This record gives sequence, structure tokens and C-alpha cells, in this order.
Amino acid sequence: MNDRRATMAEVAAAAGVSVPTVSKVVNGRPDVSPATRRRVEEVLRVRNYSPPRARTRDRVGLIDLVFIDLGSPWAMEILAGVEEVAHRADTGVVVSAVHGRKRTRPDRRWLEQLAARRSDGVLLVLSELSSAQQAQLDELGIPVVIVDPAGAPAPGVPSVGATNWAGGVAATEHLIGLGHKRVAVIGGPTDVLCSRARVDGYRAAMNAAGLKIPAGYVRTGDFLSPTGYRETQVLLSQAKPPTAIFVCADQMALGAYEALYERGLRVPDDISIVGFDDLEEARWGIPPLTTVRQPLLEMAGMGTRMLLTLINGEELDTLRVELSTSLVVRSSTAAAGESA
Amino acid sequence: MNDRRATMAEVAAAAGVSVPTVSKVVNGRPDVSPATRRRVEEVLRVRNYSPPRARTRDRVGLIDLVFIDLGSPWAMEILAGVEEVAHRADTGVVVSAVHGRKRTRPDRRWLEQLAARRSDGVLLVLSELSSAQQAQLDELGIPVVIVDPAGAPAPGVPSVGATNWAGGVAATEHLIGLGHKRVAVIGGPTDVLCSRARVDGYRAAMNAAGLKIPAGYVRTGDFLSPTGYRETQVLLSQAKPPTAIFVCADQMALGAYEALYERGLRVPDDISIVGFDDLEEARWGIPPLTTVRQPLLEMAGMGTRMLLTLINGEELDTLRVELSTSLVVRSSTAAAGESA
Repeated sequence: MNDRRATMAEVAAAAGVSVPTVSKVVNGRPDVSPATRRRVEEVLRVRNYSPPRARTRDRVGLIDLVFIDLGSPWAMEILAGVEEVAHRADTGVVVSAVHGRKRTRPDRRWLEQLAARRSDGVLLVLSELSSAQQAQLDELGIPVVIVDPAGAPAPGVPSVGATNWAGGVAATEHLIGLGHKRVAVIGGPTDVLCSRARVDGYRAAMNAAGLKIPAGYVRTGDFLSPTGYRETQVLLSQAKPPTAIFVCADQMALGAYEALYERGLRVPDDISIVGFDDLEEARWGIPPLTTVRQPLLEMAGMGTRMLLTLINGEELDTLRVELSTSLVVRSSTAAAGESA
Repeated sequence: MNDRRATMAEVAAAAGVSVPTVSKVVNGRPDVSPATRRRVEEVLRVRNYSPPRARTRDRVGLIDLVFIDLGSPWAMEILAGVEEVAHRADTGVVVSAVHGRKRTRPDRRWLEQLAARRSDGVLLVLSELSSAQQAQLDELGIPVVIVDPAGAPAPGVPSVGATNWAGGVAATEHLIGLGHKRVAVIGGPTDVLCSRARVDGYRAAMNAAGLKIPAGYVRTGDFLSPTGYRETQVLLSQAKPPTAIFVCADQMALGAYEALYERGLRVPDDISIVGFDDLEEARWGIPPLTTVRQPLLEMAGMGTRMLLTLINGEELDTLRVELSTSLVVRSSTAAAGESA
């Protein structure tokens, strides 16, 4: 036995397993067979392994914030929330975007750079790590927190989201309350968890009110204006077009405005629109957009505080936090007309 | 004489001057008296001073990007431009906002953090350094480049801007070419250089066309929607309101839209609007906004390349670069009606 503490790679080699498997065992994740877990735990004990987090003493004063796409307007709100909390903790924020071909997770080069210059922790925004990358960060002793996860976060990875389902319910109930019966929805990508939750909230509210969802009333976009424009055109060309649309992102809602404007339809006289996010543009839309406010600044701040807690070697109270959404009623929704 | 190279602070003490004065002499700036310059140069020679830039050999792989305000939508476009170029150079981007009370330059804490964790270079966006801060960065061997400077950058500080004056001329000439004679302008803060240039471009185009600028037709906002809304209301309440307005920022133009919408005035039928920036919102405005495109992404990329050049210890071809603006004609401008 040796005084120097073993690294995860050494433990993996000695146990005849991969580094990600060692990482899983160290972090108490469930997806490891009992036999493998016992073998790894034995090596950890014999080789005097201590988890890297407890090992990391000297902080570099930097955290990394990784976006899939810097182009979205809410990226800035998240950055502002992170920067504010980090600044108070005397911590700098290194911002990067995902440049890999797949564009859903950071590329290899990012992790190499991170290892070279070191970082105290990583905040991922709507992006994910491969289990190998997760294991490498564990090995480097760098904790990770996910803000607004696109998919179900890996077990054991702390994350912050919003109450997307409740927001979808609130938006749809607001329209139903105004007398609308033909209510359609334009969701985001079906593989994005927060979008699925919003559309499920819509379905729940429609079902609770005893309203049918006609075929073709559930549309799919990508959160950006052009798909809001396109899907609204599709909805308007149906035999029985909706009198109200819940559009699951403000940017798509502005695309919907454009499609309605082109057809000479007025919001909210001819059709009611509810968005989701409450971006600055929503406030200055014509007419100002009724929308579900997502507390992006607070979500970012909460994620940063969770990360700083982990960096300090403390435990989190809970691995998953959801901050509540709220309906902001402006001028894009009105009582259903006689045609409804 | 001593083998260790002297620091700027030691030179300043020996010469009986301040560190900023030594920095000015080292950087060849003009605002130092000949006698002081001679005294400082003599100490530099005797104490074997070498400029810090040439001294810095080991890079940390990080540059700092400092915004006055992370809330503006163009901040994200600048960040995207910087991140893209920095990523290709294997360099991380640390983003911070100005938190000091004055909110025009970074506070003391920022510089302390920077010195503690080190940085290869600093990009300032619409923000400035005090001459003491500039001297401290010189001392640390950290080069600075300014993107879109708010005021005249200090002599010797490299900067990137856009051809704001030419953009103001193009916007106004477009309106004049459509037959408008009563053209007003809503500018940004009068102490912001880029805003002054846009308004001067407006004046130049009006003068060249032989058009008078009526009293009260030159308004001042702060680049954000509420002041566009407010100043448009002021313009509309005049005895002879304008038939066209050049609004010097897209966000203010959206505020102008709102004021016109409230009064029941249509764009462009009743009044023509030209913006400045070409943000995403301009494209999706109702109607889509005619505007002057400012190449923010390219400006940010250019500033980053200039900074990386300095970090590599190379010379810049020129200290001041202006990238050209271009008019993007959409649907918010039309020929002047009979009332014009």
C-alpha cells in the first residue's frame, strides 16, 4: 500500500472496468451490477482511494457555463443570473458554446482545455455530458449542475428546472376560461423534456375541461420564430382552425404573430395567443404577449448557488429543484367570439 | 544594477511619478511633459526595465470579456462572435458585467480577481478603464482591446467600431429618397460616441438634401424600448409631427411601434420607421423593421483577433478598425403620403 491516493483511472485498471463504471460506483449511481460494484469497492478500499471532491483544496476562482447555443435570447438572461451570483462569490464565469458536430454536448477539446486550465465547477445549460465526460469531470474533482435540462438528467447529477407542466396547464386553462373550445398547441422538439411537459400540461387542461383535441392541433416546432410562423400557417389552413393557440416559446409566438398578420387576422380579436418564457420581446410585442413567465434569472442563480455549495464540499438538500412559472396576462388573449 | 527586471511600480517610485505616468511613457502616449518623460526614461534604462508584454511567456488560455450590461440583446451576439474566434484559438472566455456604482467601468474587485487568477487579455464592450486600471493591466502584461467604444478610446488603446456616421446617413437618405421631408431622429445617450455619430449622420443627410430640422425633432433616448416609446409620443404631440423617424436602436424602434400602435397609427402607411442594429427582433417586428445592420458578430470576432495578435506579442496593423454598416430594407418604410 502506498501513501499517494489512487486515481480513478488506476482503480479502473486494477478492477478491470472502465473509468465511467468506477465513477458510477463512487457516486452511488444505481446502474452497476452488484458483482462489479463489490469488485470496484474492494479496489477502492485497498488502493486507499478518496473522492476527488474532498481532495481539491485550492480553487482557481472560475466556473464554466456551457450553452448549446449562444444565439437564443434567454441565454443572456441565464448568463446574467449566473454572473451575478458568481461575482458575489468572487468567482469568474467562463462561457462556451457547444461546437461539436452533434451539438448536444461539449466536444473533446473543451474537456482538454478545462483539464489544462482547471475549473472549480461546470454549469450546463440545456446540454448534456456523455458518461465518459461525466467520469472525467468526476476524476478531475469538478462538480456539475444542469440548468433546464433537455432530457432526464443522469441519476446523481443535480439540476434546476421550471414547473413546465404547471405552466402548460395555466396557459391552457386561461384560454379555456375565456371561452375558447378550439385550442391548439405548438410545442418545441419532442425530445426536449421541458417542451414535452408544457404540451402534456396543455393536454391535461383540455381533458380536465372535457374538450377534445382535434387531429392536427398538436404541432411541433423548435422554439424559434420560423417554426412558429410555419406551424401557425398549417393550423390556419385546417378545415376548423383554432380560435386560440398556446405557443410553447415566446420566439415561436412572434412567428405566429407574423403568420396571422400576413393573413390579415388580428390578435386577440380573431385569435388568442399565449406564449412561454416572458422574454423582453414578449413585453414589446404588438399586442403585448400574454405568456407563462419562466424565472430564468432565478433558475440560473439557483443553479450557481448549488454549484458553489458543491465546490465548497457541502451536500445539497436536494438534487432536483423546480422553480415555479406564472401566467402574465397582457393583450394577446380575449374572450372567444361567436365563431368559437 | 540588478539582474531581476524592475516593475512599473518600482520605476514609478524611483522616478517620483505615478504608475499611470510610467505606463504612458512606456506606451508612447503623448500626454506626458518632456521633462517627466526624460526622467522616467532614464530610470527605465538604469533599472533595466522591459515591457511586461514581452515578459509574459506562459499563457493561461483565458481572455476576459467585460460588458457594462448583460441585459442588452446585442450582448449575446458579441459574446457569440468572441467565443467562436476564441474557441478556435483554444482560449476560454471569462464573461463579466460591470458591478461598480458608476457602472461605466469595472470595479476594483474585478482587477484584483483578474490579477489573482490571471488572464491573457481583456476585451471591453462599451466600457472603459480608468488610467490607473489601464496602468495596472499594463503592469500585469495584459493587453486590452475595446469593442464599440462609448467614448473616444484612450490614445494607444486598440478598438473596433462600426461606421455609425455612414449608417446614420444611409438611414436618413433612404427616408428622404422615399419623399419624406419631415424626418425626426431619436438618438441614444448624447455622451455615447456611436450614438452621436448616428445623429450627426442624420444631420448631414438632412443638410445635404436642403431639408430643415425643426426644433424638437432631435430626441434623446437610452437605446431601450421605453425611451423609444416616450420620445415617439413627444414627437407625435408636436404641432407638425414627423412623417418618418430614424430611431437609432432597434429596441427603441420597437418602443416607437408601441406608441404608434396605441395611437392607431399604422407603420409604414401613416409613418415610416428606420432602426439601427438589425437584431433578431427587427426581422420579426410587425411589420418587419427596415434598419441599419451593425455587424456585431464580425466586430466581436475582429476585436478578438486583434487581442489574440497582441497576446502573441505581435504588432497590430492599425489601432482603430471600423466595420461597415449596411441598410436592410424591410416593410417599415414607404413613400411619403400627401400630408408629407
